[in-house]
Amino acid sequence: MSKTTVDATAVDPSTDAALRSWVTTANAPLCDFSIHNLPYGVFRVGAAAPRVGVAIGDQILDLGVLATAGLLECDATVFAKPHLNDLIALGPATWRRLRQQISALLAAGAPTLQHNPLLKAQALISQQQARMLLPVRIGGYTDFYSSREHATNVGSLFRDPANALLPNWSEMPIGYNGRASSVVVSGTPVRRPSGQIKLAEHQRPIFAASRKLDLELETGFIIGVPSELGTPIACADAEQHIFGMVLLNDWSARDLQAWEYVPLGPFNAKSFATTISPWVVTLAALQPFRTMQPAQTPLPLPYLQQHGAHAFAIALEAAITPSGRAQPSVICRTDFAGLYWSMAQQLAHHTASGCNTCIGDLMGSGTISGAAATALGSLLEITANGRTPITLGNGVLRTFLEDGDAVSLRGWCQGKAYRVGFGDCTGVVLATHPAAPVLAGNTT
Amino acid sequence: MSKTTVDATAVDPSTDAALRSWVTTANAPLCDFSIHNLPYGVFRVGAAAPRVGVAIGDQILDLGVLATAGLLECDATVFAKPHLNDLIALGPATWRRLRQQISALLAAGAPTLQHNPLLKAQALISQQQARMLLPVRIGGYTDFYSSREHATNVGSLFRDPANALLPNWSEMPIGYNGRASSVVVSGTPVRRPSGQIKLAEHQRPIFAASRKLDLELETGFIIGVPSELGTPIACADAEQHIFGMVLLNDWSARDLQAWEYVPLGPFNAKSFATTISPWVVTLAALQPFRTMQPAQTPLPLPYLQQHGAHAFAIALEAAITPSGRAQPSVICRTDFAGLYWSMAQQLAHHTASGCNTCIGDLMGSGTISGAAATALGSLLEITANGRTPITLGNGVLRTFLEDGDAVSLRGWCQGKAYRVGFGDCTGVVLATHPAAPVLAGNTT
Repeated sequence: MSKTTVDATAVDPSTDAALRSWVTTANAPLCDFSIHNLPYGVFRVGAAAPRVGVAIGDQILDLGVLATAGLLECDATVFAKPHLNDLIALGPATWRRLRQQISALLAAGAPTLQHNPLLKAQALISQQQARMLLPVRIGGYTDFYSSREHATNVGSLFRDPANALLPNWSEMPIGYNGRASSVVVSGTPVRRPSGQIKLAEHQRPIFAASRKLDLELETGFIIGVPSELGTPIACADAEQHIFGMVLLNDWSARDLQAWEYVPLGPFNAKSFATTISPWVVTLAALQPFRTMQPAQTPLPLPYLQQHGAHAFAIALEAAITPSGRAQPSVICRTDFAGLYWSMAQQLAHHTASGCNTCIGDLMGSGTISGAAATALGSLLEITANGRTPITLGNGVLRTFLEDGDAVSLRGWCQGKAYRVGFGDCTGVVLATHPAAPVLAGNTT
Repeated sequence: MSKTTVDATAVDPSTDAALRSWVTTANAPLCDFSIHNLPYGVFRVGAAAPRVGVAIGDQILDLGVLATAGLLECDATVFAKPHLNDLIALGPATWRRLRQQISALLAAGAPTLQHNPLLKAQALISQQQARMLLPVRIGGYTDFYSSREHATNVGSLFRDPANALLPNWSEMPIGYNGRASSVVVSGTPVRRPSGQIKLAEHQRPIFAASRKLDLELETGFIIGVPSELGTPIACADAEQHIFGMVLLNDWSARDLQAWEYVPLGPFNAKSFATTISPWVVTLAALQPFRTMQPAQTPLPLPYLQQHGAHAFAIALEAAITPSGRAQPSVICRTDFAGLYWSMAQQLAHHTASGCNTCIGDLMGSGTISGAAATALGSLLEITANGRTPITLGNGVLRTFLEDGDAVSLRGWCQGKAYRVGFGDCTGVVLATHPAAPVLAGNTT
């Protein structure tokens, strides 16, 4: 089948707000996966090999099937992979054309796929039938700390309310290297970590299961265009290096963290798990939702200065579903656009020293808290480090997470009667490893 | 050729101190690559594909050639790789047999390879002809901080001499996640980083090339047997997960570090480059050099307790060769055995929270300083943060590194008239990136 059979003129689903799909579930006003979105992910069905797909409504579009049928410009081999890295490596020009080709195939009225029953049956897989995998092979995972409200709250709780925000915070996007090996996809259970805890009443730390297991509501972006060792990325060019975004839960053991983090930063308190959502929402899909980030005072140093709108209006929610409950309780509603430092500034700072970046690198935003009491992105902040429990409804209280709790993050951009959403980013807390008492020295 | 042609009974080169090789350069008393060593590396000659080899004297043994000739039990494909990861994945039993087979082929008097001129010409490559590559594909890079002397010195210089060692330091091997993408092999030039520097006389930071570029004399170990997410490695089992060791220079920009590191630890100050030596010295080769680590007070918590000798006597040196000089000036002589926390304790702590590890992960020791004034592993310590310059000879003074300086690390275990050494770990400092003044906002 030649490429000339692709339907319609190339329509940019980011600019045509009226565009609809013949996959009708995609047109529901609250559906995350409208035709304006077209996020990429890696899925598998049963024991079949992992494949690359695009979410549309309640379906997954199997890109390998379309490529084999000659409907996409890419070679089908890049879609027969357990990660998006090879697809991403084809570069921004291919990303753009692929998005147009997929959009043209799915647009309402486009006949090529819609009216080919055999091909359609092969190419559309129900999301309920598929299991999603980690979308990218992550070489490096960096986590920033870019919400002024979050940094202020944590500084107050861990250090000194009078000097909550350290002087370096407003000069640079503070960040640290996280542990890439323990980044897992939504749906992976998370085992409660054990570790050293220093209680005020004891002279020495104990080794025990964390009593202060927390979530952190974050987003992450994924590097699409790498940069060379020794060569900084200018702030004005930085967005061109970003392929897309995911939701990110930076699970944190606050008791381990408080004891270990001086002077080299968080380590065991965070390295046990980081959960990301399976669908990578491309920067192309986010374009209509550009907005201004908060005003920056003082004016950043020249290498961090930027002009125009470099934030994105992404509504974010975190919810907890206690074991045995059907209904999640929303504990936080916030917005990505409130982040003080932009993704472009984060990346410019990260590479200013010459640090290189690779396709698939993951960069977390840091916890995204807002000014409102309902907009705090962690239990540490919501409960003032456990002092004021939160009510989840039906009399269920929480200071920190309990075993069996399911934590879900959601995020979406609100268009005119459509959404560009991220789907679910979920993890259930498991009891700590059975070896923990032995490691603690309890032989009974 | 069948495997029965392998020479001699299996001799363990770690236990037979009298063993010599027919590759006579390996028998020189100061040669790092005696037959007792047999470290693995990845090399290339000209434009040929990278291959896995073993250093012996001034030669490289091309393992793919031997495997193709039927002299090794491994399939030749694991040696036709740009990294050791596939070889390492074959597991400890294979590592042991491979070491015996290689030793048996190279032992003095063994005829199979020595008296086969054609095969010998193929299998032995002069080290001078080859270029060494990064030996492993590194998924995660962690750096510890395990020298009591170094932590005390840094605490005095950066914080408070009266409370130099923080209370958590003597309870756990403090560590942080480093940046794996910028780990480079010995010989790779290192560009001076630029970044934010906060000078006492200015209210705000400037963006400039680091004026306090430093080295850190470290070793690193490489994970050979991975561990699962959620499952700690017991201290008693931890050494079985280690494949081998390298030298490691954790280049550090002290001015960037001092400004950025609170509260999340070092980031741009270290992520611009980390240099490792190309030859991985196996834990098997280090066995004869086991020794006790320093006594630990207080007794560590149970999960960090160990019995027996878990340090290794590895003499270490750092030297600087200023541009245009032929002779390196040794600035530090120290020993790995002085490290307070063992590699086993580091790994047990790293995984105690459930963090997983992967083949090829690199774990740095932290700067290895001793108690003597001549045993300080960084210029920060040697020059008291630049206050007391060091003389390199011929009137050349240094506070921190200057452009053109070559930094070399060396390390070896001293046997009876032989060495098990690491070879060279070198990098030359280049001027900062030409874009730095533009990033700083200087348009002239």
